[in-house]
Amino acid sequence: MNLQGRNIISIRDFTRAELDFMLSTADKMENLAKRGSDILKAKIMATLFFEPSTRTKLSFETAMYRLGGMNIGFSEPGVASIQKGENLSDTVRVVENYSDVLVIRHPMEGASRLASEFANIPVINAGSGSEEHPTQAILDIYTMKREFGSVDGLKVAMIGDLRYGRTVHSLTYALSLYSGVKLYLVSPDILKMRNEVLDDIGRMIDIEEGRQLKEIINKVDVIYMTRIQKERFADPAEYESVKGSYRLSKTDLEEARKDAIVMHPLPRIDEIDANVDSTIHARYFKQVWYGLLVRMGLLTLVLGSVP
Amino acid sequence: MNLQGRNIISIRDFTRAELDFMLSTADKMENLAKRGSDILKAKIMATLFFEPSTRTKLSFETAMYRLGGMNIGFSEPGVASIQKGENLSDTVRVVENYSDVLVIRHPMEGASRLASEFANIPVINAGSGSEEHPTQAILDIYTMKREFGSVDGLKVAMIGDLRYGRTVHSLTYALSLYSGVKLYLVSPDILKMRNEVLDDIGRMIDIEEGRQLKEIINKVDVIYMTRIQKERFADPAEYESVKGSYRLSKTDLEEARKDAIVMHPLPRIDEIDANVDSTIHARYFKQVWYGLLVRMGLLTLVLGSVP
Amino acid sequence: MNLQGRNIISIRDFTRAELDFMLSTADKMENLAKRGSDILKAKIMATLFFEPSTRTKLSFETAMYRLGGMNIGFSEPGVASIQKGENLSDTVRVVENYSDVLVIRHPMEGASRLASEFANIPVINAGSGSEEHPTQAILDIYTMKREFGSVDGLKVAMIGDLRYGRTVHSLTYALSLYSGVKLYLVSPDILKMRNEVLDDIGRMIDIEEGRQLKEIINKVDVIYMTRIQKERFADPAEYESVKGSYRLSKTDLEEARKDAIVMHPLPRIDEIDANVDSTIHARYFKQVWYGLLVRMGLLTLVLGSVP
Repeated sequence: MNLQGRNIISIRDFTRAELDFMLSTADKMENLAKRGSDILKAKIMATLFFEPSTRTKLSFETAMYRLGGMNIGFSEPGVASIQKGENLSDTVRVVENYSDVLVIRHPMEGASRLASEFANIPVINAGSGSEEHPTQAILDIYTMKREFGSVDGLKVAMIGDLRYGRTVHSLTYALSLYSGVKLYLVSPDILKMRNEVLDDIGRMIDIEEGRQLKEIINKVDVIYMTRIQKERFADPAEYESVKGSYRLSKTDLEEARKDAIVMHPLPRIDEIDANVDSTIHARYFKQVWYGLLVRMGLLTLVLGSVP
Repeated sequence: MNLQGRNIISIRDFTRAELDFMLSTADKMENLAKRGSDILKAKIMATLFFEPSTRTKLSFETAMYRLGGMNIGFSEPGVASIQKGENLSDTVRVVENYSDVLVIRHPMEGASRLASEFANIPVINAGSGSEEHPTQAILDIYTMKREFGSVDGLKVAMIGDLRYGRTVHSLTYALSLYSGVKLYLVSPDILKMRNEVLDDIGRMIDIEEGRQLKEIINKVDVIYMTRIQKERFADPAEYESVKGSYRLSKTDLEEARKDAIVMHPLPRIDEIDANVDSTIHARYFKQVWYGLLVRMGLLTLVLGSVP
Repeated sequence: MNLQGRNIISIRDFTRAELDFMLSTADKMENLAKRGSDILKAKIMATLFFEPSTRTKLSFETAMYRLGGMNIGFSEPGVASIQKGENLSDTVRVVENYSDVLVIRHPMEGASRLASEFANIPVINAGSGSEEHPTQAILDIYTMKREFGSVDGLKVAMIGDLRYGRTVHSLTYALSLYSGVKLYLVSPDILKMRNEVLDDIGRMIDIEEGRQLKEIINKVDVIYMTRIQKERFADPAEYESVKGSYRLSKTDLEEARKDAIVMHPLPRIDEIDANVDSTIHARYFKQVWYGLLVRMGLLTLVLGSVP
């Protein structure tokens, strides 16, 4: 299999076999991430972040540096040529002269796709609009595979903002590529997963909605927590009344399976209590490491440099 | 010829022979820009951008990285030590301890020259005030040489803001070093090239002012477009009445010579219609590539590392 | 002696022997700083600057690059995940997945110490709160050692803001590790060194307070100037009345010893007149170079890579 020159725009552009290939490439990166390598020496990645994201940017930069490559780019929304009114397609056609791969984050839905249509080099979507964040989904899947050996048959609870959170949609689609996955969706009514997403993947994956975390916590392998933003609620009182149901503490985990894992795309605010950090269930910091391996793998894949 | 240790402050500091040497050095950079090199390994460039410029900064950074060197610097106008009131000469005397070459952009006329007087390492002017931007002029000249084989005898139309646009003055001086160049200046009255520039170079180069683009488009080899900023006009109505005359579309180009090329320092807003992009005339994105080669060449020259 | 894995949080965490080891390691860095090296190849430093500092950041970055390593990080106070409310311990536990050493600047007292308690990799304090800035103190000590051969027995005048200036406290503690050092403290009443600092080190070092610079300038080896911020004075008139006494000009230096040196942590505003720059006494720009050597040395020490 060969993904050289491919864009990573949406998880929906890939088959299960391709996704598995990405995961097995990530496996090969673990040693390189620890001791460094020259696999991408003389290659340049351009990170065009029209919306700031420390975490994702640092992850991609580290991935490139651990492989011996370099990084250029910007991360300020008010970056100079953009302020002057330049459109995205011009920015892409300029920056592709400087780099071998583009990594784009943009507040606008579809921006990465548009960029990939103008670019003659591979484009990786590092988050665009509220729906797609494919590398986060791949690293989430990779975490599950590393922790359980296989993704097939896993029972996954997603908790919190399933409507606006951009990691949740990509992950849901990714999970739908595996067989026997059962998904529990736990969220306030106004933050429920959109019907079009549910309709789309409901045929491929077993979904159960509307229950409380405490009712299902003893059934699941993965507890995937997300941040609920107060601003999503028209009435602050409503937020105050529901927020407690979407927080996880050590006590809640007493009911969980021994080998259940807690994941979170980070940053977390208070939806996971600090007392969870030292339990055997916490994997959200480990996810960060897995994410580095996944991004290293993707960069070598699209640049045709898999060792 | 040897330019090691030289500053690149103004195009007027160089002879035709030196300029030609820069262009032939840029030629040598094309392979290195594609496959990378270690020519400047262990060298550090400091980019001191007191005024933001994504495009120029990324170009210099890429030039350094493709040569195996590193980059440090800042690009925020409100950078810390400057906010505390430090003057430029102190900043230079600090940063030269960290680097082998300084690249400076500053809103103040003469800032790069001042910096070069304090620095013990070469200084490259990446734009200061409204008059000088020498590396842009060199890349413009390089584009013409690459596209036509020679700059001598070219007919060049400059369109738009010839008064405040910082690339235009440096380019005009650069063109005056070549023989038989004819220059057509096309601009609104209030954005005409200043008399002191005209007087200065009018003796060396054949200049024709005051005509419309459509009258001369069939005569010229190079159509050099620039951005007109609405803010330059006291009366918005005046801007509205003239702006159409300084825009270029595919239809306008029907009258152009077959081998005429369209250039632009970028970013463009709407002074070149998107339908020009796919014509055989468009060279403004190719200029970006040429600019990378020119800056790679300049860095190796002033650092004494030409391969 | 081995400092691999050690944190550099406070100068007070180190013995005189350890400090001397740092200084002798800095000596070994001078050649590497000039010609570059691969000692830290494949190592990544993360600079987490929650408070901007061009100078310190550039110094650390250069140190890493001259040693062949790489740098990731941020320097904007309003950096994305922080804005979202992430706490420092989470940031540390994320970023340690990407790097081999953390360099932290933070406005809050104790932030670096806190970070080191969560991190599994060495943490270097690049300034936290108003009290500690250990690498500045080490480079100050290193400057004295380089210029006088030994720190023991030196007579040092500290002038200006001895209350809030963050370099002064670390330096005072560092000096107290050497024998026979005499310290003259020269400051306005409201900017005098705090009593708890005086009490703490007064047992170890000979301190004289309350005199004017002109009274002691002929006695001292080192004139250590600092910036006085107008904002510290409740009454602007009071500032105006005292500021002249805490400025140094060439004329003042006529009374100084021939081999006395003038130091400053930089940036300076007007507390050292520009006419001092060309005197035989000025060392404040040389300090910048020494600072680079010290930071290169510290990075190789904590990463266990001393050549």
